Amino acid sequence: MRYELYYWPTIQGRGEYVRLALEEAGAGYLDVARSAGGTDAMMQMMQADGGTPPFAPPLLKAGKLVIGQTANILHYLGPRHGLAPKSEAGQLWLHQLQLTISDFVAEVHDAHHPIGVSLYFEQQRVPARRRTAEFWKERVPKYLGYFERLLAAGKGAWITGRTLTYVDLSLFQIVEGLRYAFPRRMAAFESNIPELIALRDNVAARPNIAAYLASERRIAFNEDGIFRHYKTLDL
Amino acid sequence: MRYELYYWPTIQGRGEYVRLALEEAGAGYLDVARSAGGTDAMMQMMQADGGTPPFAPPLLKAGKLVIGQTANILHYLGPRHGLAPKSEAGQLWLHQLQLTISDFVAEVHDAHHPIGVSLYFEQQRVPARRRTAEFWKERVPKYLGYFERLLAAGKGAWITGRTLTYVDLSLFQIVEGLRYAFPRRMAAFESNIPELIALRDNVAARPNIAAYLASERRIAFNEDGIFRHYKTLDL
Repeated sequence: MRYELYYWPTIQGRGEYVRLALEEAGAGYLDVARSAGGTDAMMQMMQADGGTPPFAPPLLKAGKLVIGQTANILHYLGPRHGLAPKSEAGQLWLHQLQLTISDFVAEVHDAHHPIGVSLYFEQQRVPARRRTAEFWKERVPKYLGYFERLLAAGKGAWITGRTLTYVDLSLFQIVEGLRYAFPRRMAAFESNIPELIALRDNVAARPNIAAYLASERRIAFNEDGIFRHYKTLDL
Repeated sequence: MRYELYYWPTIQGRGEYVRLALEEAGAGYLDVARSAGGTDAMMQMMQADGGTPPFAPPLLKAGKLVIGQTANILHYLGPRHGLAPKSEAGQLWLHQLQLTISDFVAEVHDAHHPIGVSLYFEQQRVPARRRTAEFWKERVPKYLGYFERLLAAGKGAWITGRTLTYVDLSLFQIVEGLRYAFPRRMAAFESNIPELIALRDNVAARPNIAAYLASERRIAFNEDGIFRHYKTLDL
């Protein structure tokens, strides 16, 4: 089956967690909104009056199914492509980890947009500085420390052990994003998370991921996405 | 099976979405942290070095399984207690809706805590006013409008049709919470969401829910939870 992925065409954003899973799996997919007329097609699916219109992108079309919410899409794809355990207990645990990553991603976004998504960064620069300070003092150590602890207690290179899952791919993206958005802060922090950095390197070395990262399919980080580099926030 | 629910003992918070599902289902459960020594037991489970320690409460113990993340818990409970459809497609759709509710709940929280959870409300009163204004101008109409549209296009009293699901119970909680936190703003807004208000009334009239709401098991809303009433934010 050839999947159709619908996501904003100029950013990595939340769609990137799905792209990484599809690429690692070698699954056939069309990144619809990046082709002609694709964004209109996406908006039409979101405004549909019947069926299961999603609240926001990304959405994945898999045959007749239209699935929204990033973690939900990964929960669907994982067991079909060897990126999740076979047991229900294993899948629940993996999904729980991905939902915790989703929570963190929302906090990454709100570090530069603490007042509202409809306002420009420049309109919330002062509270963004305060929130980013809190984010690095309290939240980054808590979230990344949680994953670091799981890796240190585990029995393999990956978050659930000896087999790579979609959560490992998402953790790669988290490290990459924080390095892009906060190069100084992240450089000072990385010695606290050696296991996560090793995991990041292991993901980057996967042949399918390496080929993807070197291709035009990988959109560059930029200041419209979730991870944004603003010097004033990276003191 | 008798479930064990672990959540902060003095607030509704995110645990309430699980409590409502367990109560509607008539499922046996122990609200562990509300009994003697329960909060210590919860903290021990979160700090466990092996197994599947959750990042944050709520967690549900179901036999040997320990499940974290509110929407994940409901995704597990739903099909076991007649609160979710039987088909995979139906369960993915329902879970997608619950994840959208989770996103909204995080935004409700950040309306009064836009800078950081480790700071008091008084330390972020000014940005909280700005964020709350944006929240009511942009986000409440978008989220509640989405669910209202689904209800209006559907073929029954409930969000997915003629059968109540855990998402209906969560939508009830959203309406109750907004009424508590923002009585003035909500009173002015409710004429925009007649279907959601009718759904709220239908949930409140369910015998098991009515009995629960009248019991001591239902913790009152208060200013430590997600939905907090601050006069200055309800102008």
